[in-house]
Amino acid sequence: MRKEAGMPLFQVAEYQSRIDKTKKRMIDSGIDLLVVTDPANMNYLTGYDGWSFYVPQMILIALDDPEPVWIGRGMDIAGARHTAFLSHDRTIGYPDSYVQSPDKHPMSFVADEMRKRGWDQQRIGLEMDSYYFTPRSYKELVKSLPRATFMDCNLLVNWVRIIKSPQEIVYMQQAGRIAERVMERAIDMLAPGVRECDAVAEVYRTQIKGTSEFGGDYTAFVPMMPTGEKTSAPHLTWTDEPYRNEQAVNLELAACRNRYHCPIARTAYLGRNPPPNLVKLSEITVEGLNLTLEGIKPGILCEEVEQIWRRHIARAGFEKESRIGYSMGLNYPPDWGEHTASLRPGDKTVLEPNMTFHMILGMWMESFGFECSESLRVTEHGCETFAAFPRKLFIKG
Amino acid sequence: MRKEAGMPLFQVAEYQSRIDKTKKRMIDSGIDLLVVTDPANMNYLTGYDGWSFYVPQMILIALDDPEPVWIGRGMDIAGARHTAFLSHDRTIGYPDSYVQSPDKHPMSFVADEMRKRGWDQQRIGLEMDSYYFTPRSYKELVKSLPRATFMDCNLLVNWVRIIKSPQEIVYMQQAGRIAERVMERAIDMLAPGVRECDAVAEVYRTQIKGTSEFGGDYTAFVPMMPTGEKTSAPHLTWTDEPYRNEQAVNLELAACRNRYHCPIARTAYLGRNPPPNLVKLSEITVEGLNLTLEGIKPGILCEEVEQIWRRHIARAGFEKESRIGYSMGLNYPPDWGEHTASLRPGDKTVLEPNMTFHMILGMWMESFGFECSESLRVTEHGCETFAAFPRKLFIKG
Repeated sequence: MRKEAGMPLFQVAEYQSRIDKTKKRMIDSGIDLLVVTDPANMNYLTGYDGWSFYVPQMILIALDDPEPVWIGRGMDIAGARHTAFLSHDRTIGYPDSYVQSPDKHPMSFVADEMRKRGWDQQRIGLEMDSYYFTPRSYKELVKSLPRATFMDCNLLVNWVRIIKSPQEIVYMQQAGRIAERVMERAIDMLAPGVRECDAVAEVYRTQIKGTSEFGGDYTAFVPMMPTGEKTSAPHLTWTDEPYRNEQAVNLELAACRNRYHCPIARTAYLGRNPPPNLVKLSEITVEGLNLTLEGIKPGILCEEVEQIWRRHIARAGFEKESRIGYSMGLNYPPDWGEHTASLRPGDKTVLEPNMTFHMILGMWMESFGFECSESLRVTEHGCETFAAFPRKLFIKG
Repeated sequence: MRKEAGMPLFQVAEYQSRIDKTKKRMIDSGIDLLVVTDPANMNYLTGYDGWSFYVPQMILIALDDPEPVWIGRGMDIAGARHTAFLSHDRTIGYPDSYVQSPDKHPMSFVADEMRKRGWDQQRIGLEMDSYYFTPRSYKELVKSLPRATFMDCNLLVNWVRIIKSPQEIVYMQQAGRIAERVMERAIDMLAPGVRECDAVAEVYRTQIKGTSEFGGDYTAFVPMMPTGEKTSAPHLTWTDEPYRNEQAVNLELAACRNRYHCPIARTAYLGRNPPPNLVKLSEITVEGLNLTLEGIKPGILCEEVEQIWRRHIARAGFEKESRIGYSMGLNYPPDWGEHTASLRPGDKTVLEPNMTFHMILGMWMESFGFECSESLRVTEHGCETFAAFPRKLFIKG
């Protein structure tokens, strides 16, 4: 999903403001040149969008250069010109002979391009923990630019991304509209005898169809709808086995619009009479979710949000180890999380308006669990969720 | 998609044989311990399957140890026990406090585990150019194990994967059955006024539903169905704009079964009267595809396959830069290619029975292109395709 002629996803001024904020952080970090390899960061700074992150590609941001440079595979230049706001002479492609070759690596081409621009003696920031920047790429770059100084600037752009613009919020709200339909369709599909793959197929269709006004995009995680013993294994995907009666199903779903996400999780029970302890868990969890949402407002810390939930379940005699949420928005597979702020003990990030989180609350017993999540933005005085969907245990009797 | 109780995807003996072949290559490369971080390689050696590759995880194969070790996030141990053939005491999880933390990195936990097993002074092979192994992970490991020697063993397991077993071929044939349905549904959907997202939504649904006998899995690339000027930008995804009359559409689709892929590409034209030069391109390309398929057999080199095509189009007055195919099979996003053998000049890989390729032939003019692909296995005397679908320009008049 990307801009069409005449309807850019964002104004050039917005990209420029993102680049300016990035450059301020580059100055603070003491670097001259930033090599942006995270596909979400590449998109954020220029609009570039394509399923091309399986080969080395990057945006170069130099303090001494007003416009970024895109470098990628030669055949992807057309996509870069179609989606990024950059001038055509700022999109540079390496020949196809560099692709997955035993003899040469795209990063030596990249180093040559840096040298041409006089960037080979600079302090260069790298995203050392981003998904599509490999150790081999890193070593090739370091070897090819012996006079440069390299620094880890992982998450530098991610931290710029943490506060969303009004237009970004609009896309997340649109993702919310789609997410409501996705969850509704998923719960509709659940019945004993229906194969997991058939239910997930409808989820995918609903994600991509979107609404009559706007279509949907692929999500950074695949849909997950585990049942039975698999609910205790969080990242297993579907099978072609049928759903069975008297089982709980955890629905971890999402929708995406222009690469902006709205994840949403709910739990359903197949059968007329859910076990009383599942019903009790669902009540405690939903009560905790409501309480925690009520507590979110600008000025409080991420760890304070988590404390609200922690205290609530402690009163019910439970505790939970993992974090209960994370900053998210624009992203690509394999993760919609931004890897910046987390709702967990020790995270001192101060909430500000238009920060956006996925808060996922879950309680697991030996044989089943209940989970319920909301995607939300911090507002001036509290928070609001992107999707409007009932918070409860769904009973498909 | 993964094994259910009582129906493993592969016999333990098959995993064992894959591990044995890997160990032979480790001996040849002079390493004692292999750190396998590529999710497809992790699956290949143990059966492990989950959407958990967004956090550090790995399989350790040691020459002095009969059984592999799985290390990943604590919450994914249940998934590892559900999908991998390993004994429970060989699945080791790091605490959630390591996940995306500014203070500590999962690789220091991994180094401790290696030290416990006496592997900290060994020659350790790493997959230096695999997608989910980052420079930060690499540096943490090197720093934490100062007495170890590190070597790049990228693609070591991928080269073991290049020849498929009979059971792997069965899954690729099943993917072929689904791919036929996917392509049929995609072409059915194409009509002027239909939004791209609505056509892609049906493609997704068909991919995942599979057949009445077996379901489908998510594919390592998203479906691509570009039209108009976007056909010259290969990796752009869909929009919510409608398809228009008198436009060509390139359909680059696939199906997946148990993580084994069957990609397939075709081209359609919306309108009764396709331009004569598109018709001519389609005839040249299909003729070239047929010729090249006829030429594939054990014993010839990958570059010789490409030569058949190259000579064919030279006779028609054309040339094409990029490779025309690559080894593929088991994989995860972002790429179903195995990064080993390519059908391109200079690739001296000798074809053997049960090597599997995606061969994609395309010709592009200024404003449109024609492409047609087949997924195939090399047989004892030639080759056979996984999907049976007409090779031609599809005219939706």
